[in-house]
Amino acid sequence: MARILTGVQSTGTPHLGNIIGAVLPAIEMAKNEQNESFLFIADFHSLTQIKDKSTLRKNTFETASTWLAFGLNPNKTIFYKQSDVSEVTELAWYLSCFFPFKRLTLAHSFKDKSANLKDINTGLFSYPMLMAADILLYDADIVPVGKDQLQHIEMTRDVASRFNNTYGETLIVPSSLIDTSIKFVPGTDGNKMSKSKNNLINVFLEKEKLKKQIMGIKTDSKNINEPKDFSSCTIFNLYKILAEKKDIEKLKNKYSKGNIGYGEAKQLLFELILNKFKHAREKFTYFQNNPEKVELALSQGAVKAKKIAQKTLKRVRAKLGY
Amino acid sequence: MARILTGVQSTGTPHLGNIIGAVLPAIEMAKNEQNESFLFIADFHSLTQIKDKSTLRKNTFETASTWLAFGLNPNKTIFYKQSDVSEVTELAWYLSCFFPFKRLTLAHSFKDKSANLKDINTGLFSYPMLMAADILLYDADIVPVGKDQLQHIEMTRDVASRFNNTYGETLIVPSSLIDTSIKFVPGTDGNKMSKSKNNLINVFLEKEKLKKQIMGIKTDSKNINEPKDFSSCTIFNLYKILAEKKDIEKLKNKYSKGNIGYGEAKQLLFELILNKFKHAREKFTYFQNNPEKVELALSQGAVKAKKIAQKTLKRVRAKLGY
Repeated sequence: MARILTGVQSTGTPHLGNIIGAVLPAIEMAKNEQNESFLFIADFHSLTQIKDKSTLRKNTFETASTWLAFGLNPNKTIFYKQSDVSEVTELAWYLSCFFPFKRLTLAHSFKDKSANLKDINTGLFSYPMLMAADILLYDADIVPVGKDQLQHIEMTRDVASRFNNTYGETLIVPSSLIDTSIKFVPGTDGNKMSKSKNNLINVFLEKEKLKKQIMGIKTDSKNINEPKDFSSCTIFNLYKILAEKKDIEKLKNKYSKGNIGYGEAKQLLFELILNKFKHAREKFTYFQNNPEKVELALSQGAVKAKKIAQKTLKRVRAKLGY
Repeated sequence: MARILTGVQSTGTPHLGNIIGAVLPAIEMAKNEQNESFLFIADFHSLTQIKDKSTLRKNTFETASTWLAFGLNPNKTIFYKQSDVSEVTELAWYLSCFFPFKRLTLAHSFKDKSANLKDINTGLFSYPMLMAADILLYDADIVPVGKDQLQHIEMTRDVASRFNNTYGETLIVPSSLIDTSIKFVPGTDGNKMSKSKNNLINVFLEKEKLKKQIMGIKTDSKNINEPKDFSSCTIFNLYKILAEKKDIEKLKNKYSKGNIGYGEAKQLLFELILNKFKHAREKFTYFQNNPEKVELALSQGAVKAKKIAQKTLKRVRAKLGY
């Protein structure tokens, strides 16, 4: 049995790209009876960028609601907020005393952000130690990550090994798991869907607003009867990710033959999204109206997570001499 | 009423220089009925340099024993180990998200150590945020420090102000208090007494060992009957710090007239130390034989400190949105 841990950033309501790329695959993986899974919302991390109480809360709540709406089972997966298990900051301190300052200055995440952000705070710099603590606190074996997070996992492995070399086997050195099958989800402008590019589709919007987002997808200016190149069309590329095989073939044909206009294709995509995410949309709305249900799931998860965290910390402190 | 907080490093048994320069003045200040005082042993900080369980424990224990032996009253002063109130690491994380990375790289303590230490770890770098949390967690008004720590207090004031500017008055911005009357305590080689210079006098040593340390004080090679310059003599300068006025005058006379050899002067200093620190030596030995008394004092202090720490954290978390 492997223990799989996933951290989720909460920088806003998860969009279609997040759902396809992260939420659905993680929920699928969590269903595996062979595995024990942990999923947490990294709201301590959010503070490096968000300094507004209501934004922080809203982001955390909507992120949690999304996961639950898409079927994450909080009885099977330990689902919690990072800030509910503040033991992680204690472990981060210990780890930071084992990790060379120089190496941390080489973190891509820090170097990349340093160029763009106004507020380069110390938290942003020391974040990889907090992330290492997030993982090591729960004795995680496997951490599924995107390529951009690979270096952080390497740092986690490194600091765990340094600790173990000094004090004997104490921390589990985790492995990363990169999902190479990750699908490219285009945003409304054809580039990768991303909050920062303002090209996203929020599947939880009310119908009219969602329709407006979809109608905003950029296309070329071919008219209804012209044959169209489906492979370069953002509408088709989104449709392809969500639809059944036979429906994809049908749309492909219409494109090739010039039997469809972009407006109609957008309408098809809109209806597909409404249909595909009907249940998730209903559940999301339910959670909006019953936030205490989300809070309850998270706080129950926190109790379980805290228990494990305290056990690990006790082991670590005994080794250190505290 | 002012709340005064003092942090004590625990890098080894406190020596005569520490006792004269830090322990006795702090205990005197703590006696003031007008003040509320906090004194903690910075054993989280120790981990930046000490990676050995028994050394860490021994240092903490001997430091605590010294303070108690010299009369610190744990019923009046809240006396605790930093590691017993790990809430401080949580506040340190929050603060680090408000403090510019660039400014932290300018900390003298880090820049100075970077040149000399082999193990420049991230903890050593981010330590000023932990120190800020040590202070802000307890709403301290006044922090007595040496000149070398002044910059850390400035950073503490800075980060507290940044937090307050964003979220409204939340943290108490502390003042530093520099004791300009601090006496120069020479080591056995005449330079400032310091562990790193290996010139110290440990007043808790058993008599024969203590005598050996004192007999090791460097002098010039004047013989018994020659007049001697008391002002440049390390024996005299140590004697002067500890003795009564009339005894100081007596010794001064003997030096000037050439009525005393250095061996005899050392014997006088030795007897003075034994006499002056008789009670403290007995209490220190008692604690060596009854370590549970020290543990009890610290754990009772930890309960009081933790209560205050949790109250502050609650206030901070509510502002941040956790």
